[in-house]
Amino acid sequence: MEEKKVAVVMGSDSDLKIVKETIKTLKNFGINTEVFIMSAHKSPDITAEFAKNAKARNFAVIIAAAGMAAHLAGVIASYTTLPVIGLPINCSLSGVDALISTVQMPPKVPVLTVGVDAAENAAIAACQILAIHNKQLEKKLEELKEAVKESVVAKNENFKLTDSLLI
Amino acid sequence: MEEKKVAVVMGSDSDLKIVKETIKTLKNFGINTEVFIMSAHKSPDITAEFAKNAKARNFAVIIAAAGMAAHLAGVIASYTTLPVIGLPINCSLSGVDALISTVQMPPKVPVLTVGVDAAENAAIAACQILAIHNKQLEKKLEELKEAVKESVVAKNENFKLTDSLLI
Amino acid sequence: MEEKKVAVVMGSDSDLKIVKETIKTLKNFGINTEVFIMSAHKSPDITAEFAKNAKARNFAVIIAAAGMAAHLAGVIASYTTLPVIGLPINCSLSGVDALISTVQMPPKVPVLTVGVDAAENAAIAACQILAIHNKQLEKKLEELKEAVKESVVAKNENFKLTDSLLI
Amino acid sequence: MEEKKVAVVMGSDSDLKIVKETIKTLKNFGINTEVFIMSAHKSPDITAEFAKNAKARNFAVIIAAAGMAAHLAGVIASYTTLPVIGLPINCSLSGVDALISTVQMPPKVPVLTVGVDAAENAAIAACQILAIHNKQLEKKLEELKEAVKESVVAKNENFKLTDSLLI
Amino acid sequence: MEEKKVAVVMGSDSDLKIVKETIKTLKNFGINTEVFIMSAHKSPDITAEFAKNAKARNFAVIIAAAGMAAHLAGVIASYTTLPVIGLPINCSLSGVDALISTVQMPPKVPVLTVGVDAAENAAIAACQILAIHNKQLEKKLEELKEAVKESVVAKNENFKLTDSLLI
Amino acid sequence: MEEKKVAVVMGSDSDLKIVKETIKTLKNFGINTEVFIMSAHKSPDITAEFAKNAKARNFAVIIAAAGMAAHLAGVIASYTTLPVIGLPINCSLSGVDALISTVQMPPKVPVLTVGVDAAENAAIAACQILAIHNKQLEKKLEELKEAVKESVVAKNENFKLTDSLLI
Amino acid sequence: MEEKKVAVVMGSDSDLKIVKETIKTLKNFGINTEVFIMSAHKSPDITAEFAKNAKARNFAVIIAAAGMAAHLAGVIASYTTLPVIGLPINCSLSGVDALISTVQMPPKVPVLTVGVDAAENAAIAACQILAIHNKQLEKKLEELKEAVKESVVAKNENFKLTDSLLI
Amino acid sequence: MEEKKVAVVMGSDSDLKIVKETIKTLKNFGINTEVFIMSAHKSPDITAEFAKNAKARNFAVIIAAAGMAAHLAGVIASYTTLPVIGLPINCSLSGVDALISTVQMPPKVPVLTVGVDAAENAAIAACQILAIHNKQLEKKLEELKEAVKESVVAKNENFKLTDSLLI
Repeated sequence: MEEKKVAVVMGSDSDLKIVKETIKTLKNFGINTEVFIMSAHKSPDITAEFAKNAKARNFAVIIAAAGMAAHLAGVIASYTTLPVIGLPINCSLSGVDALISTVQMPPKVPVLTVGVDAAENAAIAACQILAIHNKQLEKKLEELKEAVKESVVAKNENFKLTDSLLI
Repeated sequence: MEEKKVAVVMGSDSDLKIVKETIKTLKNFGINTEVFIMSAHKSPDITAEFAKNAKARNFAVIIAAAGMAAHLAGVIASYTTLPVIGLPINCSLSGVDALISTVQMPPKVPVLTVGVDAAENAAIAACQILAIHNKQLEKKLEELKEAVKESVVAKNENFKLTDSLLI
Repeated sequence: MEEKKVAVVMGSDSDLKIVKETIKTLKNFGINTEVFIMSAHKSPDITAEFAKNAKARNFAVIIAAAGMAAHLAGVIASYTTLPVIGLPINCSLSGVDALISTVQMPPKVPVLTVGVDAAENAAIAACQILAIHNKQLEKKLEELKEAVKESVVAKNENFKLTDSLLI
Repeated sequence: MEEKKVAVVMGSDSDLKIVKETIKTLKNFGINTEVFIMSAHKSPDITAEFAKNAKARNFAVIIAAAGMAAHLAGVIASYTTLPVIGLPINCSLSGVDALISTVQMPPKVPVLTVGVDAAENAAIAACQILAIHNKQLEKKLEELKEAVKESVVAKNENFKLTDSLLI
Repeated sequence: MEEKKVAVVMGSDSDLKIVKETIKTLKNFGINTEVFIMSAHKSPDITAEFAKNAKARNFAVIIAAAGMAAHLAGVIASYTTLPVIGLPINCSLSGVDALISTVQMPPKVPVLTVGVDAAENAAIAACQILAIHNKQLEKKLEELKEAVKESVVAKNENFKLTDSLLI
Repeated sequence: MEEKKVAVVMGSDSDLKIVKETIKTLKNFGINTEVFIMSAHKSPDITAEFAKNAKARNFAVIIAAAGMAAHLAGVIASYTTLPVIGLPINCSLSGVDALISTVQMPPKVPVLTVGVDAAENAAIAACQILAIHNKQLEKKLEELKEAVKESVVAKNENFKLTDSLLI
Repeated sequence: MEEKKVAVVMGSDSDLKIVKETIKTLKNFGINTEVFIMSAHKSPDITAEFAKNAKARNFAVIIAAAGMAAHLAGVIASYTTLPVIGLPINCSLSGVDALISTVQMPPKVPVLTVGVDAAENAAIAACQILAIHNKQLEKKLEELKEAVKESVVAKNENFKLTDSLLI
Repeated sequence: MEEKKVAVVMGSDSDLKIVKETIKTLKNFGINTEVFIMSAHKSPDITAEFAKNAKARNFAVIIAAAGMAAHLAGVIASYTTLPVIGLPINCSLSGVDALISTVQMPPKVPVLTVGVDAAENAAIAACQILAIHNKQLEKKLEELKEAVKESVVAKNENFKLTDSLLI
């Protein structure tokens, strides 16, 4: 079976400054990733077509990033049964508009939402989903978890509150 | 030329308890009104198809009512250049989620939003738009404005603060 | 019949930095546009007089931009049956005060509200309203919609995630 | 000189269930009070006329109560230099829309705002203003302050936490 | 290989009135589901132990439901690399506290959050994740999507705005 | 009778950057103004003493400016029956914390609140209160109102939307 | 040395329906508790006097409960160096006004705030503070913690999702 | 008996720019302070271990600082009966997410919360708790209170509103 892919869809190229962290993280995990710019409101037919065909194109998870009245993730979720991860981008109102527009979906059409501008978390969550049937990926996630812990431990151990800090 | 129509679209029949006021108001103004239940998230193809064909079907204005992450008006606006009036329905979070999801549209795809559950106002706004080229409708709107004023004047004049009120 | 005009009214010349996008967009669409500075709170009589006479002066749509406790659109709507588009300007509280003061109108006096600082959308919505009886304008709106889509498509196609982006 | 009066203006007779507390309080203080129903949006000319003439009619303070996009106090303040007390009524969004629409006035046109549904406080504030030149009223306010304190003291002294309360 | 299971964890049995919809939906999809009551704050060791062992116990996805300062999903996510779906329960502040406490996770520890009280969506999202490697489940999800659409279509077709509705 | 004075009280000298507009405005109106730095939380006894004696010291109105959990106006209002104008200062949370802490007073102890950082409005409102019994001040307020209107009118008349603005 | 006491102060007897849980909890822990009704705004001198003398009267911790612009805890904290626990009561705006007015204190005058209506937690926190030098109380707190855990464990073990629940 | 210590725990070294004020303040009071970097989500086992052993290590109070979905204080409180002071750090959403995630704890597991970024107050509150059984510390707190008052008094006395300020 061909390897499952993750699609990263963003509503505008201006979202790239946040979303590139998603892409980098997926690539670091060795995930087969494709990136698209398409808009729920500006290219709706293309977005609909993409969502309908995503499964056939061997995508397993779709990450959709958008700001303001962020409908992108919801529109994609309306056309596919693949898991859709919504990444709210802060363009206005501290991103609360994007968060609420993404997460408050009606019954039967979920969008799995991460925090405002939480680009890395969107990628890691996609990896967690893929890792259910991918031992190698699971191992990488556990290594990341361990590394994250070690990093905090190291910060704690190396921490010296120098006088300059306290001035 | 055939008379222009107004479409009232709601995401769920549960919205009808609010939206019926929109329909009643349009009918009272003698507007040729058609009512649809369709959902941005549950019947997206049908919604898209409807929006694309609305102009050809002689609709001039579309009123779209939805709650929560209310994408209905935005999705319709993505497929048509007709003016779309968004009516946010209070299903959760006092309707703030629906209001924000409806009004905070990205550049180039406006949704003209009325207040939360402001069903009558959605209808009157549609009438105001149609009245630009409809003298009879314009006259009715002016009569309504006058009647509304008279009603307030009458309430003020008849107002007696009875003792019972003040107990 | 004389061509219908759009009035753009702003509460203060400090709003011009946002509102100029409204004016530019209307002019690009070839709309006969007049611009006014008047305030619901500082020149109320002039605002009232303007609103009462707007129809006779051949305005078809009024766009009213204001910030804070943004009453300008509502005050104008109280004096005319023309469609009034409210454009909330972000002067304080992320523009939430202006949004809520503009959109939450009482029954029978609608203001058609666009997003916070959504200057271009206010103009496009006005064009959509005028286009109901203006085939040429309708064509321009459809061309814009197509161009917007093409622009997103082009961005998607040309998109190359360069290494420098991912560093 | 004729005795100064207080005007209590409300946007709708539905506000009376809250505003009657304002009226009762003013009457208990022996204030010459007149009550009006007029709407910033439904009877704007009458409201404007009222505000312009209020000083000549010997009103010293105007209390304006309204809900939603509560413009009533602001509209009145735009036409008079009398002190205007804004009383936000909770009709929607917990009254936050009314509060923000009342208090966030632009420079040079203040509205003195009390809390949401704070009907009694609006009246007492009006009395405090009148009491600056009215020794008798000042005395009543001091008696009220003393009585309020005594009432709290009495509640504290009589307070017995009975077992039934704690079950 | 043993069939993958879904764990539904709730912070309190009072959450069951919402969460039972999650459980019912999972069972209707034929998912092997286990339900737990455990609390991030009241039984933290048990919760930690559960999260650490979840993968070994053959759970593939964990749904965690909690209200207020809803830490349950975040705490579980801190101990496992399995995908964790957070279901915010409305116990206070319209559920906004639970939503924000669930979704705003720090980098590298995602919680996939659904809407406030969106119990059914939490279950469907879990099914979507499992369906990536389960053709039968994928088919059921597509049937549900189709049935949901048919239901909306039927509502639209059967819809007759009776006079009684409009009174 | 000695001329009535206005007290401007601020919680911290850091508030002066906002409050100086209050002071300037009062002085421009020729109001006998005294300025104090005192804190509800840092010098409560002095604040209490000040409030108790304010009437005897011939103050007619007290303007109290504070940020965060802004108790200053409320504490002063608890000790005097003089009208207290609360000026919320934006130190955090966009000033919403200061606004709510100032305006949401319990029954019988009003604080007359102006908008966030609305320093000039606080002063003008104080003048409006004093003008009830001061014809000269009343005239100045009317002149200001006229000048404000003229300024808007002039801006409107002189307004030329230059090409450079629209680029 | 005489046993340390906890003072429970509430702004109004209407708060008792929430605060009684605080009192019950303290009594269950065997804490020497005294209850007072006094108001920051209605009996400020008494409140100030109480706060100044609290230490001399052998109080170790003060719990202050109030709603709306909840100044009670802050006012008490301004007069004492004892730890003050603020309990925000939901009287309006879902209690957000009380929460913010209680917690957002200026530097150097902390109020230790618990959640909205979190009456029991206010008491337990007071016990935690006293337990630092009271081994018996510390033991009771540990027993409570253990009992709370056992209760969750029992609920989990006894939990049977009956068919009736799932209908 | 060994002297009681205060633990200052922060979720990330990026919090240090705020938290260093907490540390400085504790040191200025002569408190035996230990500082830790540990994360509820990144090093949960270490955090749990720390919390369980904190009492045995002679800590009397724990100050926990975290941002976003700030679970650190709550997680620590779930493992200890020591008083836990939560310090919400503003990383996003003006710190409202951190505030709510910290303060809205469920019954029986309190976190004593100070304002957003209120680093100094967290320290002073810890001192107030320790001062219950430490006369010397109590005296220092009283001296601080006096000094704070004197500082405000001095600012008030020295205050001269220079012309330059008013320009």
